[in-house]
Amino acid sequence: MIQRYTTPEMGVLWTELAKKTNWLEVEAAVLQARGKLGEIPEIIHKLTRRVKITEAILARADELEKTNDHDLIAFILAVTEQLPDKVKPHFHAGMTSYDDEDTGLAMTLVASLGLILEKMNRLRRVIAARAEKHRYTTMIGRTHFIHAEPITFGLKLLGWLDVVERHIANLQKVREDARVGKISGAVGTYVLDPTVEELACGYLGLKPARISTQILSRDIIVRYISALVAVANSLDRFATEIRHLAGTDINEVAEFKRPGAKGSSAMPGKSFLRNPIKSENVCSLARMMRGYLIPAYECEVVWCERTLENSAAERIFLPDATILLDFMIKRFADTLEKLEVFPEHMKRNLQKTGGIIFAQRVMMALTGKGMARDQAYDLLEGICFSVKRGTFQTEDGKTFRDLVAAHPEITANLSLEEIDVCFDPQQSLKHVDTIFKRFDLAI
Amino acid sequence: MIQRYTTPEMGVLWTELAKKTNWLEVEAAVLQARGKLGEIPEIIHKLTRRVKITEAILARADELEKTNDHDLIAFILAVTEQLPDKVKPHFHAGMTSYDDEDTGLAMTLVASLGLILEKMNRLRRVIAARAEKHRYTTMIGRTHFIHAEPITFGLKLLGWLDVVERHIANLQKVREDARVGKISGAVGTYVLDPTVEELACGYLGLKPARISTQILSRDIIVRYISALVAVANSLDRFATEIRHLAGTDINEVAEFKRPGAKGSSAMPGKSFLRNPIKSENVCSLARMMRGYLIPAYECEVVWCERTLENSAAERIFLPDATILLDFMIKRFADTLEKLEVFPEHMKRNLQKTGGIIFAQRVMMALTGKGMARDQAYDLLEGICFSVKRGTFQTEDGKTFRDLVAAHPEITANLSLEEIDVCFDPQQSLKHVDTIFKRFDLAI
Amino acid sequence: MIQRYTTPEMGVLWTELAKKTNWLEVEAAVLQARGKLGEIPEIIHKLTRRVKITEAILARADELEKTNDHDLIAFILAVTEQLPDKVKPHFHAGMTSYDDEDTGLAMTLVASLGLILEKMNRLRRVIAARAEKHRYTTMIGRTHFIHAEPITFGLKLLGWLDVVERHIANLQKVREDARVGKISGAVGTYVLDPTVEELACGYLGLKPARISTQILSRDIIVRYISALVAVANSLDRFATEIRHLAGTDINEVAEFKRPGAKGSSAMPGKSFLRNPIKSENVCSLARMMRGYLIPAYECEVVWCERTLENSAAERIFLPDATILLDFMIKRFADTLEKLEVFPEHMKRNLQKTGGIIFAQRVMMALTGKGMARDQAYDLLEGICFSVKRGTFQTEDGKTFRDLVAAHPEITANLSLEEIDVCFDPQQSLKHVDTIFKRFDLAI
Amino acid sequence: MIQRYTTPEMGVLWTELAKKTNWLEVEAAVLQARGKLGEIPEIIHKLTRRVKITEAILARADELEKTNDHDLIAFILAVTEQLPDKVKPHFHAGMTSYDDEDTGLAMTLVASLGLILEKMNRLRRVIAARAEKHRYTTMIGRTHFIHAEPITFGLKLLGWLDVVERHIANLQKVREDARVGKISGAVGTYVLDPTVEELACGYLGLKPARISTQILSRDIIVRYISALVAVANSLDRFATEIRHLAGTDINEVAEFKRPGAKGSSAMPGKSFLRNPIKSENVCSLARMMRGYLIPAYECEVVWCERTLENSAAERIFLPDATILLDFMIKRFADTLEKLEVFPEHMKRNLQKTGGIIFAQRVMMALTGKGMARDQAYDLLEGICFSVKRGTFQTEDGKTFRDLVAAHPEITANLSLEEIDVCFDPQQSLKHVDTIFKRFDLAI
Repeated sequence: MIQRYTTPEMGVLWTELAKKTNWLEVEAAVLQARGKLGEIPEIIHKLTRRVKITEAILARADELEKTNDHDLIAFILAVTEQLPDKVKPHFHAGMTSYDDEDTGLAMTLVASLGLILEKMNRLRRVIAARAEKHRYTTMIGRTHFIHAEPITFGLKLLGWLDVVERHIANLQKVREDARVGKISGAVGTYVLDPTVEELACGYLGLKPARISTQILSRDIIVRYISALVAVANSLDRFATEIRHLAGTDINEVAEFKRPGAKGSSAMPGKSFLRNPIKSENVCSLARMMRGYLIPAYECEVVWCERTLENSAAERIFLPDATILLDFMIKRFADTLEKLEVFPEHMKRNLQKTGGIIFAQRVMMALTGKGMARDQAYDLLEGICFSVKRGTFQTEDGKTFRDLVAAHPEITANLSLEEIDVCFDPQQSLKHVDTIFKRFDLAI
Repeated sequence: MIQRYTTPEMGVLWTELAKKTNWLEVEAAVLQARGKLGEIPEIIHKLTRRVKITEAILARADELEKTNDHDLIAFILAVTEQLPDKVKPHFHAGMTSYDDEDTGLAMTLVASLGLILEKMNRLRRVIAARAEKHRYTTMIGRTHFIHAEPITFGLKLLGWLDVVERHIANLQKVREDARVGKISGAVGTYVLDPTVEELACGYLGLKPARISTQILSRDIIVRYISALVAVANSLDRFATEIRHLAGTDINEVAEFKRPGAKGSSAMPGKSFLRNPIKSENVCSLARMMRGYLIPAYECEVVWCERTLENSAAERIFLPDATILLDFMIKRFADTLEKLEVFPEHMKRNLQKTGGIIFAQRVMMALTGKGMARDQAYDLLEGICFSVKRGTFQTEDGKTFRDLVAAHPEITANLSLEEIDVCFDPQQSLKHVDTIFKRFDLAI
Repeated sequence: MIQRYTTPEMGVLWTELAKKTNWLEVEAAVLQARGKLGEIPEIIHKLTRRVKITEAILARADELEKTNDHDLIAFILAVTEQLPDKVKPHFHAGMTSYDDEDTGLAMTLVASLGLILEKMNRLRRVIAARAEKHRYTTMIGRTHFIHAEPITFGLKLLGWLDVVERHIANLQKVREDARVGKISGAVGTYVLDPTVEELACGYLGLKPARISTQILSRDIIVRYISALVAVANSLDRFATEIRHLAGTDINEVAEFKRPGAKGSSAMPGKSFLRNPIKSENVCSLARMMRGYLIPAYECEVVWCERTLENSAAERIFLPDATILLDFMIKRFADTLEKLEVFPEHMKRNLQKTGGIIFAQRVMMALTGKGMARDQAYDLLEGICFSVKRGTFQTEDGKTFRDLVAAHPEITANLSLEEIDVCFDPQQSLKHVDTIFKRFDLAI
Repeated sequence: MIQRYTTPEMGVLWTELAKKTNWLEVEAAVLQARGKLGEIPEIIHKLTRRVKITEAILARADELEKTNDHDLIAFILAVTEQLPDKVKPHFHAGMTSYDDEDTGLAMTLVASLGLILEKMNRLRRVIAARAEKHRYTTMIGRTHFIHAEPITFGLKLLGWLDVVERHIANLQKVREDARVGKISGAVGTYVLDPTVEELACGYLGLKPARISTQILSRDIIVRYISALVAVANSLDRFATEIRHLAGTDINEVAEFKRPGAKGSSAMPGKSFLRNPIKSENVCSLARMMRGYLIPAYECEVVWCERTLENSAAERIFLPDATILLDFMIKRFADTLEKLEVFPEHMKRNLQKTGGIIFAQRVMMALTGKGMARDQAYDLLEGICFSVKRGTFQTEDGKTFRDLVAAHPEITANLSLEEIDVCFDPQQSLKHVDTIFKRFDLAI
């Protein structure tokens, strides 16, 4: 939990105060359930709820923990000190630490996914808006980092939208999977009646686990972290793309730079040239995120009815991964929202190769006239090799397009109009609207 | 792809022959779609389908690859040699390598998940049957590898069933996500009409991708591998459990050993004592599986409309992870199906501590009579410390239970009958049927 | 950086204050070098050193960072405000951010490794002392968690010492590798004379990098983290061992429990039975540590003369991994130092199988008399199978040893005295002193 | 072990035949040692050495394994069938499987590292030669993928050389660490005299382990794999660099393309534009390699005197990681050796920004005249912002350099000659020879 990369709204969910407030809510919900079932007076849970977790109670619990070496027991004792005597015999009775811990954790995970989904929905809208705006902004598509064929910037973004929508659906699913509590006691055999679990979970907005040991099975945590890292991973790809397009040699986009922001302590030109530092930051955090997969998966493998080797790791990777992803989504959405896009530079880059990128179109036109595919392929490949690599022109300044238009084997098959059509980027982009229609950009 | 850990049915899906047969099917489906749309004669796809991929064609493609350094182009050329002239101009026309590669891969992933789901369903049945059989087989639950409270072996297995059912649901979902092809050309802008993609994917049992670049977005692969590794991870926990219970010091279960199987080349007693080698094997392969997460996640991050840094890694981790998991599920199901269970040893172990494990029950009984929880806790904790750690008896042979029954503060509150109830394991197991009822063991 | 798992001495090395104090030391060292070379007056570095980094300066830098979005530039400005005018033109002149950052980081890494090595040396001594103490404490060796042959507890610990000594040697090596600074400017081409780098690094206790880009090559960080995680990994094995031996069913060791420490909030018996929570904690943190490998390795792969995708991740994993390992070593050493060992329980466990574990000894004795190895193996294996698995006795109470002593094929070859020798654990332990002699336990 | 990425010389080290040949060598070395010590006749090991491991013996062992489920025992039996009767009682006597397995593995690791070191030394020579050739080939250095300041291509390569030399030193160290065998029997307590281990290891070119359990401690394997992945990781960075420089928009290098090699099945221009597929391949395999870290680390954590959870994973990741790295080094060295470099394109790119990249030089010159650093910084930053981002010129065609030369605040401080010096790339490259002198390029 590094302040620098924590949004306030997410940070607050993962404080000790929030965690222990959850624990007390769990305890109260159990007492309420027991009250409802007539096991204890209804007043008990109401009296319990009068206690509010404060920094003072946390401090008292910390002090007690120094003696008893067990943070939940210390918490129970610290709270008990605040409780009226009539509550004491019932408080935490029949429960084990992880009834509080895991149920409280589920509350935190569900709330965290709520915040993440909000941010993902905003990201979705940002991408959709920018995709729509650049629906017809033509640029070169690159494969292997080599110019390939025209696309539009909007299409590129639409591809991201597709991915983001899959993540949103997945996160919603994972939220339901994580919405599970347990009040099943020390080894999952229910000291308290199973109905208590059912009712208490209901009060807390959770479902009861079908079965548990002392803890909930960690396959749920695996799925939670996998879903989070998967989002970070896709952001890594998107941010890498921005970093490429923002490079001086491509110069098709630039991150928005606040007036006053500095690029380098040594190079004054860097403020103008604008390092894409927000996108780099997203890529860097994605690397952290991938690392969290390992403890998350390993931590499912506990022994028998539970061992503790998931505990310390979860104390670290659950908040860290959640908080970092939350921050990354926000940062990436901010960056994309304000990203400067340079359509005229995109247009210039599209022409860099003097038309070589349209070789496939010419090949298709030739095969349309009956030339064998491999013959056409070889012919056009040959013409490409007539220009110089650096300037994409022949010694006497001819481009690939010039050469095609003058080649007898081609002109024998294609009219100049047909050739012109081949070199028209719009010919490659006839289906843009078809693709866009598959998405709902209105929301 | 290591022979030792490959089932024949899965191995065959991942051969070069199977892969290239898929490619040809994709090509034929595209031609069929184009025929259907009237772009080319219907006969073209039929003639194409007459070609069967054979080892000879693979060998020819390998030879051609030596010159052109591109396995798909080599394949196209090798097949083209087998095609009638009238097919040649149409074959692969308007397509890019990854139209074949990714669509063919989707076919393989869907088929692989089919096999995996079959095995998972069998595993489900094996677990269900054994859980039912041992519904009331009482044993000690262990937390921190320390005796905690009684459970039944059936409950333990039922917890596994819960996890397995979640995995099955998830794998089914992932299968639908992976059931996606693409015929969208070099940078995803459709040289062929999008309707061709739609029809061709339909012929192949796939859905068309909403959008693609030169390739399908790899978030699908991330989800595929995550789902697989998640299964392996749970098997790791289950197999670890068997290894623990099979240890000489616990001796509650034993892996079935084929007559003649050897335990050690040095120690003749090992055949009798039976190393749980199948379970160890599952745990070992789970470690491999977790490693495959890393390339799977990293490989989503390609540049622009595609780069190749996913390619070689996918050639390795996709078959390896799929094949290993398939093997693991089978091996684990086999192991569990034949696992020998020793209820009498479980019963003996349950009594090892002379009743200390029932201390919570006594505490609950005391608080039920009005004693404060922490007072009862401390009292019972104190009695525990009267016995010796090694034998769980006092110098003069008294167990915890004996001491409880003789302790004035306890007998003042509880009758001997009430005390007996505390030490009756069945008291901890009243809710076993309730839990079992939540599962459908019949299927 | 989680307070719970941070030792004060390590925590202080990784504060913002310490980091920025290092930066200022780097700046001062550069000015000193330039003074030494006569480029600027000697007084400049002395005046610079009068500035002390305080919380106030940090706060001022934070404020400035809000405008210029660059933490090092903000720091430079905040310090500059404190400098006399005559220093200002020289301060940070010719330098780039990472001259401070990477050189300062090297100082932190070297200091951190110093603390870690101290703790490792203490761990070494703790292990050595306990190994010596238990040199002859006989216990069963377990392979596959099945009883194998006798060892001593001291031997087990000596194996750990071997590993720890290799780690110490490796950490020392890595410390020398990390002892490298750079003052080579924006892209490593030296705005300041290379001699400045050499001198300044010398003042800081570092060596100058042979070559650098804007940053030091991250293969050094990879090696640093690998070395740290490797230690954590070995501690994971050792702690796992303690957890196994501490289990109720084995009960050969127990973690020291402070009076008052609680084992469970539900089960009063757990304080007596003593959960090995410190060892579990070490295992849990090891899982975190393995995860840090991934960003550490990925972060070497930056683009061209540097990109920033290592930066945020390093802000997290460098302190986190260093701090956690430091804590783990301390915690494990503390745990081992106070570990209770129960030789009498070890002795009892050794006899659990009624002598089956000595089957190899009998086999060797028989082959020594000329019996073929596989014949002897099969004979003894057969006798093993005469006893019951649960009690390791026949129906009429005979143990394996009894059966061996009565078996005609064996008595035909071996006298009773020879048989007794086979079942004497000390026979397996003749070479204990030989092995111990290979280690220097005195230090 | 994927054929496509296996060199013949490395592949042969990791066959079943090679593995089992090693096992037999270990057995023979033990017999030789025992002969030397007078325990058995000298002839025994000589007779043993007459057996050669053949495919037939492997097949026989496979058959036996079907019954006894233990590959080493099956091997021992299959070999025993080939041995004269007088050898049989001594063959494998006193040994355990892992005496063969681990000692044989050490032989394979040492041999593998030998091959890898050969390839690394060749890579070192390739880099050194190309660095020397391009010592003065000026190009733009890029930070954040943004133009920064001039470097030379030779310097860039020299940075790689630095890294490669560290890897070579590390691999040599790891080879010595891995050069360790063990003949210490079932739990490491020596059935055979420790002198046998010492002698036998010596015959095999190994050192005896100071101590072992049933197996060697896997911290050695962790270090082995870490060293391998670390090399792959650096190659990932280098290959990423080539991929960037080879992109159409930078176009400073190109991978050599064999005549006839195809770039794309769809785009004929791709053969000319040349996808950097070999470098992409190296990056892809690096992703696999990072994944192998996880099982390698996890596999150290076995239980007690050994469990088998390292076994299956090591069967996979040890050959796979070794073979892939071997292939990667060769592929990368081949690629770099033949890499086409375009100095004239580098020169053109250097001028792309109209001199903005020299802003730091101008700033230094101004501060050299007494202007405060931040004033100079701000002044030059301001001038940068006068040009348009796309063309790096003002509306009326002025470049940054033109503007600097005409700015009164600058011309008041610097003469035109001094300004010219600022914009001379060679001024940034004065220390190139100094840096080169730190390396020995002759070897």
